[in-house]
Parts: sequence; structure tokens; C-alpha cells
Amino acid sequence: MSLTRRDLLLAAGAGLAARPAVAGSQAGPANPEVAPPVRRTPGGRVHTLNGWSLPHRINGGVKEFHLVAEEIEHEFAPGSKAICWGYNGSTPGPTLEAVEGDRVRIFVTNRLPEPTTVHWHGLILPSGMDGVGGLSQPKIQPGETWVYEFTLRQHGSHMYHPHVDEMVQLAMGMMGLFVIHPRGGDHVDRDFAFLLHNFALHPGTRRPDPSVMQDFDLWTFNSKVFPAIEPIVARSGERVRLRIGNLSMWNHPIHLHGVQFEVTGGDGGRWPKAQWRREVTEIIGVGQMRDIEFEAVPGDWALHCHMAHHTMGPMGHGIPNTLGVDQRGVEERIRKMLPGYMAMGRDGMAEHQEHTDSGHMRGPENTLAMMAGKGPFGSIGMGGMFTVVKVRDDIAPGDFSDPGWYRHPPGTVARRVSSDPGFGAPVRRQNS
Amino acid sequence: MSLTRRDLLLAAGAGLAARPAVAGSQAGPANPEVAPPVRRTPGGRVHTLNGWSLPHRINGGVKEFHLVAEEIEHEFAPGSKAICWGYNGSTPGPTLEAVEGDRVRIFVTNRLPEPTTVHWHGLILPSGMDGVGGLSQPKIQPGETWVYEFTLRQHGSHMYHPHVDEMVQLAMGMMGLFVIHPRGGDHVDRDFAFLLHNFALHPGTRRPDPSVMQDFDLWTFNSKVFPAIEPIVARSGERVRLRIGNLSMWNHPIHLHGVQFEVTGGDGGRWPKAQWRREVTEIIGVGQMRDIEFEAVPGDWALHCHMAHHTMGPMGHGIPNTLGVDQRGVEERIRKMLPGYMAMGRDGMAEHQEHTDSGHMRGPENTLAMMAGKGPFGSIGMGGMFTVVKVRDDIAPGDFSDPGWYRHPPGTVARRVSSDPGFGAPVRRQNS
Amino acid sequence: MSLTRRDLLLAAGAGLAARPAVAGSQAGPANPEVAPPVRRTPGGRVHTLNGWSLPHRINGGVKEFHLVAEEIEHEFAPGSKAICWGYNGSTPGPTLEAVEGDRVRIFVTNRLPEPTTVHWHGLILPSGMDGVGGLSQPKIQPGETWVYEFTLRQHGSHMYHPHVDEMVQLAMGMMGLFVIHPRGGDHVDRDFAFLLHNFALHPGTRRPDPSVMQDFDLWTFNSKVFPAIEPIVARSGERVRLRIGNLSMWNHPIHLHGVQFEVTGGDGGRWPKAQWRREVTEIIGVGQMRDIEFEAVPGDWALHCHMAHHTMGPMGHGIPNTLGVDQRGVEERIRKMLPGYMAMGRDGMAEHQEHTDSGHMRGPENTLAMMAGKGPFGSIGMGGMFTVVKVRDDIAPGDFSDPGWYRHPPGTVARRVSSDPGFGAPVRRQNS
Repeated sequence: MSLTRRDLLLAAGAGLAARPAVAGSQAGPANPEVAPPVRRTPGGRVHTLNGWSLPHRINGGVKEFHLVAEEIEHEFAPGSKAICWGYNGSTPGPTLEAVEGDRVRIFVTNRLPEPTTVHWHGLILPSGMDGVGGLSQPKIQPGETWVYEFTLRQHGSHMYHPHVDEMVQLAMGMMGLFVIHPRGGDHVDRDFAFLLHNFALHPGTRRPDPSVMQDFDLWTFNSKVFPAIEPIVARSGERVRLRIGNLSMWNHPIHLHGVQFEVTGGDGGRWPKAQWRREVTEIIGVGQMRDIEFEAVPGDWALHCHMAHHTMGPMGHGIPNTLGVDQRGVEERIRKMLPGYMAMGRDGMAEHQEHTDSGHMRGPENTLAMMAGKGPFGSIGMGGMFTVVKVRDDIAPGDFSDPGWYRHPPGTVARRVSSDPGFGAPVRRQNS
Repeated sequence: MSLTRRDLLLAAGAGLAARPAVAGSQAGPANPEVAPPVRRTPGGRVHTLNGWSLPHRINGGVKEFHLVAEEIEHEFAPGSKAICWGYNGSTPGPTLEAVEGDRVRIFVTNRLPEPTTVHWHGLILPSGMDGVGGLSQPKIQPGETWVYEFTLRQHGSHMYHPHVDEMVQLAMGMMGLFVIHPRGGDHVDRDFAFLLHNFALHPGTRRPDPSVMQDFDLWTFNSKVFPAIEPIVARSGERVRLRIGNLSMWNHPIHLHGVQFEVTGGDGGRWPKAQWRREVTEIIGVGQMRDIEFEAVPGDWALHCHMAHHTMGPMGHGIPNTLGVDQRGVEERIRKMLPGYMAMGRDGMAEHQEHTDSGHMRGPENTLAMMAGKGPFGSIGMGGMFTVVKVRDDIAPGDFSDPGWYRHPPGTVARRVSSDPGFGAPVRRQNS
Repeated sequence: MSLTRRDLLLAAGAGLAARPAVAGSQAGPANPEVAPPVRRTPGGRVHTLNGWSLPHRINGGVKEFHLVAEEIEHEFAPGSKAICWGYNGSTPGPTLEAVEGDRVRIFVTNRLPEPTTVHWHGLILPSGMDGVGGLSQPKIQPGETWVYEFTLRQHGSHMYHPHVDEMVQLAMGMMGLFVIHPRGGDHVDRDFAFLLHNFALHPGTRRPDPSVMQDFDLWTFNSKVFPAIEPIVARSGERVRLRIGNLSMWNHPIHLHGVQFEVTGGDGGRWPKAQWRREVTEIIGVGQMRDIEFEAVPGDWALHCHMAHHTMGPMGHGIPNTLGVDQRGVEERIRKMLPGYMAMGRDGMAEHQEHTDSGHMRGPENTLAMMAGKGPFGSIGMGGMFTVVKVRDDIAPGDFSDPGWYRHPPGTVARRVSSDPGFGAPVRRQNS
């Protein structure tokens, strides 16, 4: 038996609470058109970077959510938009938040052109609710709405994503976070979450290429690239948690400056304290979530993948290596054929950002520069999995707005002591 | 001094137990032609996925094994055979099983066209038994038989593989498991083992290509791809261990559905219980083994690498991206040149399996489809490192046979509630 | 205000100790030309593989170091030199060693053709000393000298590297180790350190190619490849620590033969003993350091990355697979066009080293062989991230010189027992 939209409206009109038996023993989803006002948790307790938490409603003691898988237009950063697939208008889809012990009912509508399902990655649930298309359920065909229902028997940082044609559907951006809070309340002051991903949005194109396996163009936190990734804002001394999940094709080593953090758990729940491990870089495996926690220290601190190419924007590979090559004669001759041509790369690539920012270097349409971002001291030269943890003494609780750049106490910034290239007499190695 | 086959037959005929001094102070290998009946452990205590444990014989208190390195024909799944290299007729070679404290003597015959050795990866042994060609011993030339002998001073999950031209020899499939049981008996009800690997068997070819570094065609558990990988069968509530080793070129994140497992050790032995770590995905590094353990929960649960391309069969890379591209006019024109041509990929790749299964899409000879596998609810669409953990209430001890698909208790399977694409009024993000 | 070289010489001439206020409240760097004799720690307490520790001088209670970023000529192994970027004449740059609680002042002179900075990776310090160009400070322009100053509030294994155009600057070899010893003295007998890296030095070229992301030519320990990597020398029974950092583009699984080592910490400091994990292979993530410790066991033990291609020298990819291909007719015909052409690879690649060593096979100029290295029992066939841990009973404290090959106790080396290919009657799998 399947419900039509009309059935649902009727059901809702009749008062869902009074009709718990719709669709078997369960009610339909929230329907703002006719249903009583839905209780919304405007942003949830987790701060999803550049994202949001999905409102739910309580229906007969069950938390009801409604995910819609659909094609969307997504902006990776100003200057780069693509047709992606996501949920409820965004990639990643909205974060689902609930509490250990909750019973949840999740409606999933498929507005994609091909079948899908949702796999609740890391959740302990009945086999038939596990969402593996063909194995645990039939696939959700385009146009259909299916319902999942289960009780949350754990807490921790989790994910959801399709388990049908997942190579394509993941490559197009279908993923989301599922955070289950412990019943007894939480212990951190700030709780951030984001997913690592990669998109093969080749320069000049508008749809990610799902056949790419390794060499991606865009390396993202919550489907955004620097400088469009939100900063992580906290007050000095606060206990901060980052919940980081990975649905990309690489095991990314995520590095945080300024502190030694503790790895406290992930989708295996919160580990016993004796297992918390001090690190400055943690590999987040594909299909894995990691919670890292630290006491916020005042300053502007980089947070990024440490694979150097993953903090870059789209770039050419397989191009000639011009490092150290004097291209002056060549440049003039090429310029006759290609007016405006610039020979670059003799001294490194840092000049690329200057030329891009100044408008001298133009890339293909709808394509970001390889390096981007302005800091308080000039260009930052990053373009992928990079953002800044901004810790200040005067951030109000619940304030996640960008406080601007850090104002360093006097004498705490590296400074120039000479412009003489022959400065001092540095030690070189003695053969001994 | 080296022994000829005739010497050996004579030795065996004379009663090996009475001639412990053959080949120095040690006896030759088991020789069923003339020797007294060999005690065989038919499958060993470890269940090697799609594999087997090598029988041994006791000779003067020493456990004797005989490995033969040789060229073999191997089937990755029906429809894909290749000339590989392995041991005793298979890739991976047979699992060696012994008990902590055992003295083992392992004969290795080289029937390959080039030299080899065997390195006992992770074992604590004399430097000259470590099997690094050129460093710890001369190489074993084609046709020769060498013997290794040492006492097992540890227990845990280990591997063996060549240490001569290992880039080629590993790429061709030469590897095996070496499981050492603790002396005091074991604590799990079911004990599975398998090795992660990758083969560059390019479409239409019959030998893996050893020069490939990253972009492989076949991603395997014990040299098999889904759906030819055995299911992992257990009874509800049993303590199950998976011993997973990796001799591929990628650090694979292995994900198990349905439970939070514990990582309990690996080739570093069994860790103290206080170190067991709860996870749903564990990265198995290359050259690393991990033991993961869990209590079996009824259902059909996917076990797979979470890098999406590693659960796919052979596929093209660098092909045009047809997602969202209306190819109707083009299709007809191409069909005039290539009769039967099908434009695909506009709506995703899920249709590929349907066309393959229906016989519409034919790939190159001796080449698997990108997606394969039938489940109880339709096609599963997987093709590499993927299998199913099948847990039932009524599996008999020692029964590893496939119990078929799970029969879900009523009301525990996700279900359709509507076919109306406009179902409900899902919440989208508010700009605020 | 900036200092000229002349200012500095004057300052030094006047006695730096008496002029602590140069360049703000701090003194200039050591200047052997005129300054009083510098106290040098000839090798430091850490043994940097193929490397060195930078001497410092004490100035008003502050340890002063001077790093010079510059272009250098570097030899990866005899036969392969390249123009790289490094510090003080080497890649990696010299190791900085200090003690927890020390105040350090580090002068950095930029003699590169583009801007740079130094990021003190993993150190807890003021935000303005963190070295992220544009974010924590202006970039250090070519010719300039800047100074960093901070107090070390931790101990452990750390790194330094640029944070400006770091994709290029890391690809060219700019990196170094920063080891902070605990105040109360140390607990190991031998303390080694090295960094994992990769260089895209394409065959026949002389500068690494910074646009390469995955598929490198040279896989290095401290910018050297086997057999040019120093052995790790220890006396039997000594407690040995290896501090291994990774600034490459891959998370490398490092495998040690002969022992189960303990992973005891890294750039998160030394972990509590209850967290030490027994392994034989440890993944060192990019941007991560790991300390591994073990009791030295007599012998020659391989230490290497376990990704098989990472122990190879430069090699072709995308070449035809000749395994099993009888090329005799073809060889003669090609030889008519290419005198001296050798058909290879039919039986594996082990023969490559023999042909290279014998001079039959010549590669491009300035390009290493794919396999190299001679051991006591013949060619070893390795060429990248590979070295030997050499443990002997009679190594003197502080002696790191190569003791030659291990002399095995009688009866402890694998040995040949037959040259008959039909030796024995090895067991093959029974279908059952």
C-alpha cells in the first residue's frame, strides 16, 4: 500500500496524532500546509559548518524528519557553481539531530532521475532499515516516498548517504550528518560538524564527473572550498568539539594549528577517556567519523588537510614544469600568438594568486583560482580544505559570527630584522 | 648439499621419523606417495574466505608445511579469469595455522620463472629466516626448494609474501595468511580471515599489469570480487572475529554495517582490552593486519571498503561525463555507425547493471561488469571489495554454508508510503 | 626597522651579550666571523638519518638558531642530483633540537626567488609566531631575514616547513625536524629521526615537478633513496626510538621487520604508557609524526614503506605489460632498429637489476635504476623508502657507523634442500 499526497493531506487534516495508523502503524510526515505548527530547533545543538539542522516534529512520541533527495544548484565558492545532487536543497543535506533513546521516523522522497535509498551509516538498527538497495530493501524509485523508522540505541557522530549507485550519488554530493546526543546532556561548549569530500568539477564544466577516482578538482569541507568555508568561532578557554566525517575518496590527514587536540571517539561513540589520544593531525578514513576536542586558545589557527594539493583550487596536472626556467624570450614570442600571455612559475607559484587577484590571469569560466583568500597580512594562497579557527576572549555564548582577524598582543608576531640577503653567517653542515 | 626428489622418496620410504638428519638436521616434507598418512586439519580453525588452510604433518615434534610458488589460473568471479602467481594452486596461497610455541619447518619450492623468497611478515624469528632476498638469504631460484625453520614466539594474525621483485610478485597475487593461535585456546566463536588486494587486470587482458600503482581494475577480498566473495556466516550472539590483512597499494577503510565492532589487535598481537577501540570503519594499512570483533546481530549486513570506486568492477576513467546530458539525437546518429549503441549515464549509472544483466550491454571479453550482484530486493550494484555478513538465529556450530537471504521480522523493513513526487512539504533551509 | 648585514657585524663585534636590545629586545644570530666561539652540539642528541642538527648559541638565556631558505643541489643517491630547495644547504634542513621550557629565537633568511615563511608544525606558540603567510604574519620576501621567538611548552617530535606556496615549496624539499627533549632527561638509548617525502623528478630532468599529486618518481627518507639511506645502527638490547614524520602526499605504512614495536606518541607528545600500541606496520599520516620504539634484536632488518611501488626507483607507468609474453621474434626485429634493445619482463622484473648492474640496461641521464642495492646474498632490488636496521652485540655507545652485514649464527639462515622442481608432493586444495 502506498499513500498519495492527497491521502496525506487528508490524514494531516484529520489530525495526525489521532491517526497513528497511517501507513501501517505510523503517521505521515510533518505537513506545514495543514498540520499544527511544527516545533523547530532553528540551528540544532550542533553547528554544521555552512550547513543547517533539519527541523523535526514530534508525532505520537516519535521524531519525524523528511529528507528529499534532489538535484540542486550548489556554489562551492563565489565563482564556481555546479549542478549537484543533495537533500532538501543543499549538499551536504541537513544535519539530523536526535537524542539517544529517541524513536525516529524519517520520510525520504526521491526527486532524482534514478533510484536511491538512504543508508544510516554507523547506526544500530534493524537489518531492513539499513538502506542498502537490493540487499535490505527495494530501491526508492524516482517520485516515491519511503519511510524508515527505528530507535536510537547509541550516541555519537554519524552520517547518512545513498547505497544505490553510490559511486555516482556520492560524487554528486549526496551525504549528510546524523548526530545523536547523549541523554544526560553534553560536556562541550561548542560543537561543530562537517564532512570531507571531493568533487571532479573539471574547469569550465558544470557537473561533477563521477568516473574520477583520485585526482579531484575541489576538496571540500561541507561541499565548500576556502575562502567560502565558515570560520570556526569560539571563546578562549571553551571546550570545542569538531565532528569530522569523510565520504570522499581519500583518507585525509586533518591538521589543526595551535593546540594538541584529543581524539575522543567518532562513529564508534565516545571512547573511554583513557583512550583519548593527543595529536596535531588525525587521519579521517573514508566512511569514518572522528571527534576531536580541544580547549580554545586565542588566535587565528589554520585547520586543513595536510596533503598540500588538497588545500589548492583546481589546477593543471601533467603540465610542463617551469620552475627555474627563464621564459623571457619564449614569452614574447607566445604573446604574439596569444595576446596577454604571461610566462609564470619560474620562481614558484605564489605569484599566481597576485596575478589572479589583480585580474591579469583569467581561468576558464565557472572555475576558481588555484590559490585564494585574503588574510590580515596579505594573500593566504589556499583554495580547498582550509579554514580558520578564530578564538577570542570576548565571543558571546551562541555567537558563531565571524569576529574578523585576530589582534595580536604586542611583540607576539614574527617580524623582519633585515633586508640584507647576506644577513649573518648561517651555519652549514660540516663534513665530518 | 641439496636433495633430489629421489633422495626424498628414499628418505620417506625409510621412515622420516627415523631419519631426522636429512638436509642438515631436518627432515623433508610430507610425501603422500610413500609417507605414512598425514594428519590433516581439513579447514583449520580459521575460516579463510574463499580459501583454505594448508595441512601439515608432525615430524619429530616439528610442524612441517610445504608451499609451492607457481603460476596458476585464477577466477576473480565467473566471467573473469587470469594467469596469476600464487602458492599451491591458489591466490592467496593456503593459510598456515599453528600454535604459539610450535616449531615450524616450511619447505618452499619455486616453480615460478624467476627467483623468489618467502618473508614471514610480522614474525619474530632469526634474521636469516626473514626471507628478504639478498639481505637475509640468497634468492630461491626457479626449480629449487628451500627450507625455513623457526619457533613461534607470539600469537596473532600474520601474513607471508615474497621479498624478491615483490612489486611484480605481489601484483600477480603471491600472498597468504599465517595465523598463530594462543596456546591456551581461543575466545571467539567464529574466526574469519582474508587479505585485501588489487589487480590491474585491464579489460580484455589475461595477466595483471604490475606497473600500475594506483588505479586498479579489481579490488579483492582474498583475490575474489563481489558477488564471488563468500558471505560471512554466523549465529546470532556469537563472538565473531575478522582478521583482515592488506597487501594492496591502498590503505583501505573497511566498513561493517549493523554493529560497532572492536579493534582488538592484529599483527602486533592481541592488544590489552583497555586498548580495544570501538569503530564502524577501520583503516587497514598496507602491510598491516587488523583483528576486529563483534557480537553477531541477526540480519544481512554489508562489509566493504568505503572508497566508492573500490566496490566497483572494472570501469573506464577519463571518459566524457554524460550526467544530465540529453544524448537522444546523438544516440541515433552513433547507432548508424555502431549498431546497438546505447547512450547511457544521463540519470546516473544504476541502469548499467540492468542493461548488463539483461544482456543489452556487453563489455570486453573476460571482463566483469562494473556493477553486479542480485539481492533479495533486486540488483545490489557492487563489484569489488564487498560481501555480506549473514547472521541467523539457527546456524549450527561449524556451519559456514550460505543460509540465503534474511527473513525480516514484520514491520522492520523500510517501505514505500507514496508515489507522489510532491509528497508532503519538506523543509528547506531558511536564509537567516 | 630592519638590520643590514653591516649593523649585525657591528653588533656582533660589540659583543652580542652586551647588546640584547638589537632588533627590538632581541639579539642577532650567531656570526662566526666576529662573534665569540659558538657552542656546538656536533650531532645533537637525535641522530637525523643522513642529516644533521643545527648548532645554536645561547644569548641572554635564549637559544638562537639561524635557518636560511635557499636553492641547493641535492643528491638523492649517486647518479641522481637535482636542484632542490632546502635550508642551510640541505634537504631536509637541519634538525632543531631544544629542551622543554627553553626559549628559542629563530632567524630565518629567505634566499629563495619567492616569498616564504616557516610554520612550526605542532608547536604551541603565540598565533603570530605560527608562520602561516598572510594569516599570522606577512610573507618573508626574498632577501629578508625575520625572527621568530617563543617558549617551548611541550616535548616531542615535531617538524617545520613553509606555509607560503607550500605545494611548491614542499615539493622542492623544504622541511625539517624540530625535536624537543623532555626536561628530565630521556629514556631511550638511541634516538633516530627522519621525514618521509616524495619528489617528482621525472627521468632525465633536474628539478622536481611541483604539479604532480600522486605518482612520484622518488620516495624518500630524509630526501634520500635506498641504497643511499643510512642504516639504523644499534647494539642488541638497546631501546631504540624512530621519530618518523611525513610531509609527502601519501599516508605511508611503515613496516619494520624482526620486532613488534610500540607506537609511543608523536607530535601529540609522548602518550601514557597504557596507550602504547604494538604493531609491525604503522601508517604515518601526512602532517603527522609517530614515535616508534623497540628493543633491538641482533640481525639485519628491513625498514620500509609497505606500498610496493614506494620501494622502487623511477619507473614507467602505462607501459605495455610483457609478463608471460614471448618476445623473442619481436626482440630481434626491434634490435635492427634499436641496436642493443633488450626484451625484458617476460618472467618478472627481477632481471632488471642484473641488467642494470651489469651495464646492459642504461636509463635516461641523471636517473636511478628502478631496483638497486647489494646485500650479503646478492642484489636486494629496492630503490626508494627502504633501509636496514643493523643490530649487533658489539656496537659501542654513540657509534652510528655501518657495521657491515650481519654474521648469522650457524643454522639460522634459510637454505636450499633441493634443485628438483618436482620436489616432494605438495598439498593442493581439495574440492570438498
